[in-house]
Amino acid sequence: MMTIVPNNPRRAEASPFCIDSGAPAPDIALAERLFNELRDRTDEGRPDRGVTRVSYGLGEQIAHDMVQREARRLGLSCRIDAACNLYLTLKGRTAGPGIVIGSHLDSVPKGGNFDGAAGVLAGLAVAAGFVRAGQRPARDLTIMAIRAEESAWFGASYIGSRAAFGKLSETELDTVVRSSDRVLLRAAIASAGGNPDLLKTGHAHLRPADVAAFIEPHIEQGPVLIGEGRALGIVTAIRGSFRYRYARCEGQYAHSGATPRSLRRDAVLATAHLAVTLDAVWQRHSEAGHDLSVTFGQLVTDRENAAFSKVAGLVDFSLDVRSEEPATLDLMRTELARAVAAIEAEFGVRFHLGEETGSDPARMADGLIHQVSDIAGQLGLDARKMPCGAGHDAAIFAQHGVPTAMIFIRNRNGSHNPHEAMEIADFARAADVLSTLCDMWPEPPVTP
Amino acid sequence: MMTIVPNNPRRAEASPFCIDSGAPAPDIALAERLFNELRDRTDEGRPDRGVTRVSYGLGEQIAHDMVQREARRLGLSCRIDAACNLYLTLKGRTAGPGIVIGSHLDSVPKGGNFDGAAGVLAGLAVAAGFVRAGQRPARDLTIMAIRAEESAWFGASYIGSRAAFGKLSETELDTVVRSSDRVLLRAAIASAGGNPDLLKTGHAHLRPADVAAFIEPHIEQGPVLIGEGRALGIVTAIRGSFRYRYARCEGQYAHSGATPRSLRRDAVLATAHLAVTLDAVWQRHSEAGHDLSVTFGQLVTDRENAAFSKVAGLVDFSLDVRSEEPATLDLMRTELARAVAAIEAEFGVRFHLGEETGSDPARMADGLIHQVSDIAGQLGLDARKMPCGAGHDAAIFAQHGVPTAMIFIRNRNGSHNPHEAMEIADFARAADVLSTLCDMWPEPPVTP
Repeated sequence: MMTIVPNNPRRAEASPFCIDSGAPAPDIALAERLFNELRDRTDEGRPDRGVTRVSYGLGEQIAHDMVQREARRLGLSCRIDAACNLYLTLKGRTAGPGIVIGSHLDSVPKGGNFDGAAGVLAGLAVAAGFVRAGQRPARDLTIMAIRAEESAWFGASYIGSRAAFGKLSETELDTVVRSSDRVLLRAAIASAGGNPDLLKTGHAHLRPADVAAFIEPHIEQGPVLIGEGRALGIVTAIRGSFRYRYARCEGQYAHSGATPRSLRRDAVLATAHLAVTLDAVWQRHSEAGHDLSVTFGQLVTDRENAAFSKVAGLVDFSLDVRSEEPATLDLMRTELARAVAAIEAEFGVRFHLGEETGSDPARMADGLIHQVSDIAGQLGLDARKMPCGAGHDAAIFAQHGVPTAMIFIRNRNGSHNPHEAMEIADFARAADVLSTLCDMWPEPPVTP
Repeated sequence: MMTIVPNNPRRAEASPFCIDSGAPAPDIALAERLFNELRDRTDEGRPDRGVTRVSYGLGEQIAHDMVQREARRLGLSCRIDAACNLYLTLKGRTAGPGIVIGSHLDSVPKGGNFDGAAGVLAGLAVAAGFVRAGQRPARDLTIMAIRAEESAWFGASYIGSRAAFGKLSETELDTVVRSSDRVLLRAAIASAGGNPDLLKTGHAHLRPADVAAFIEPHIEQGPVLIGEGRALGIVTAIRGSFRYRYARCEGQYAHSGATPRSLRRDAVLATAHLAVTLDAVWQRHSEAGHDLSVTFGQLVTDRENAAFSKVAGLVDFSLDVRSEEPATLDLMRTELARAVAAIEAEFGVRFHLGEETGSDPARMADGLIHQVSDIAGQLGLDARKMPCGAGHDAAIFAQHGVPTAMIFIRNRNGSHNPHEAMEIADFARAADVLSTLCDMWPEPPVTP
């Protein structure tokens, strides 16, 4: 069992949410104030419709300006890279690669106030805690406010974090446009004060070797923690996926009353069998301990030709399969091919799955998972280890070899909608874990 | 075994399709000429797009005028009722209720040339056969050209046959409009020369007691006869149905990657289970000898809210269940309710089936089925007894207590489309059966 060495035994009195961990108490009041200001300034005058923080647009800029303003008040050093990512650093007690705590500050259109922002403000609250207590973290602590994570705006995801590693292509900069106003990515970055010409050269602001650990706190986007009554989750891996966005089943239209079962080529029934079959496969693999999700999110018969009195000749559908294990994704590709072949043979239909897109799973660092879990335990928090089903900037850090962790904060009603509901008490619990980690890092856990 | 008594041993030489039954050979050449004229005059100048014969509109009127013109040439007596149905009668050898052979002359938009017309022209070919041979049928033979059978135009079906029995309501006449031009049914009937005011009084042109038998020859709308290599079918019953045109499954939208299986309320998966479950029920009842069809013709996730990365919260679908047995329809209502309850419980969704519409099954007359079957056998035709899955005017006659039969003629590619493909040789076989029936009617079959 790790032993937590108190840095500052006198805890700040400001927050009612503190747990006695020994590390400086994060400044939760600051975070609360900033959450409120952020909401009020980016809800476009319609609080019921959520917030809109356009990537490289007004709402995101307001958020970056606010965070930078607070960091300067706290005396953190501020840097901005060529993609306008913001780095706010508090010097550590010891030299060497430091911890980066970060997330994004953009939102989907009419989104929630916490998705992304909670991660940045958690880092800021932790840094403010050290400053208020007159203490320093073990190593440099950098809060990173990442640009343009949401794919809603530029189609592509993780623009800011990929740019930080010099991985934004010239083609992408010169061709991708923002959905809301058709502005080119290059122009959007330039208008925010960035340097797209430097990005084109592949210039990397971040070198993996300079980052000892990247930690992304984020609201959970599913209902697991709510359901289990736990405040925090520790992500084991960000799920990879394979997807068929434009899959199709071709059968044959026929009279519903005049066509016997044996002579039908029913695209609805065939696709229904595919969904039911893959659900059974999911159930079986889950029971065998594999991480998996299978989703037919869209399924439509043809608007023009389908009718209630016709056997359906065409179904368009989407299929999204996710797992934290590459082997499970491969297994599911095999199961899918087998199911498709069997159903084609039985129902006389043809499946055309179309282009496969997707991503590789990104494993979080075992050492970090272990440390975060241990600290949470010491603080009396039963954090749940769980996969993360959605994509996050953390995956980009992990893919570049940076030891990476994600902390999930309990949240009701999912994300990407105005009804996100994170309790500030849970946010404070995550910040407490982070503060302790920054206070002791990189001390290895002392196991009994 | 029935013995066929030849009326006219010398067969007409005109048609190469005749089979030696003893009855006058139908005038198939006349029918072929009329099929061609009908196609050429109602294809709106685009033969590839099929024919359009609007109920009480131009195409239907052309067809009625053609048929009446030929009947007058043959010396048949012509009557037109208040709904503009046309009755062309050839006097029989004996007084008493006669045979009516009929079908409709309208078509769906861009439909095929044979659906409906084949029934009327078969009757005309039979009558012409008697006239050319200088013979008379056993009883009066009336060819009935029925108006407005297709529901594509006025929403309602069987307008002409219902009107003939005085069953068109004042409300229907005054409120139903034609889809193509918003003309009221009342106005459409009046413009065709009919008398909607008389129809409003419930006046019936046909009294069931005056019709000894109604026989509707019709192309098969399914692929059964083609598949089995048989020229003709004898309908045992017109299937009844229950339908939910606007059914809905309500689940809950959720993140596809972040929502575990156990916490999902997936409307697509639940509806897929319903389709697969009812298909299994269909299979089981079919194997037990019940007549049945189950069709989910339309199934769509929400256009606005569904996404490939979301568990679907809503599915709209249609369900069409048909059987020739009222008990089987009742059984299926029970099976549906059971499946809905089980799936709601398992998947946490709610089904809203919406308004149920449908129709009762209409049994064809056993005596007629037997006679037609016997005559076909004598002519060397292995006619298949089969249910009829689509609705037809014949159901209206059966429901009014008229002994009713339908003869299906083999047809490729279904109906209601330009690709209907009935061979004239098969049409001739049906006409031969009818001619023989009219020649001997109402002699009972002599069984060995």
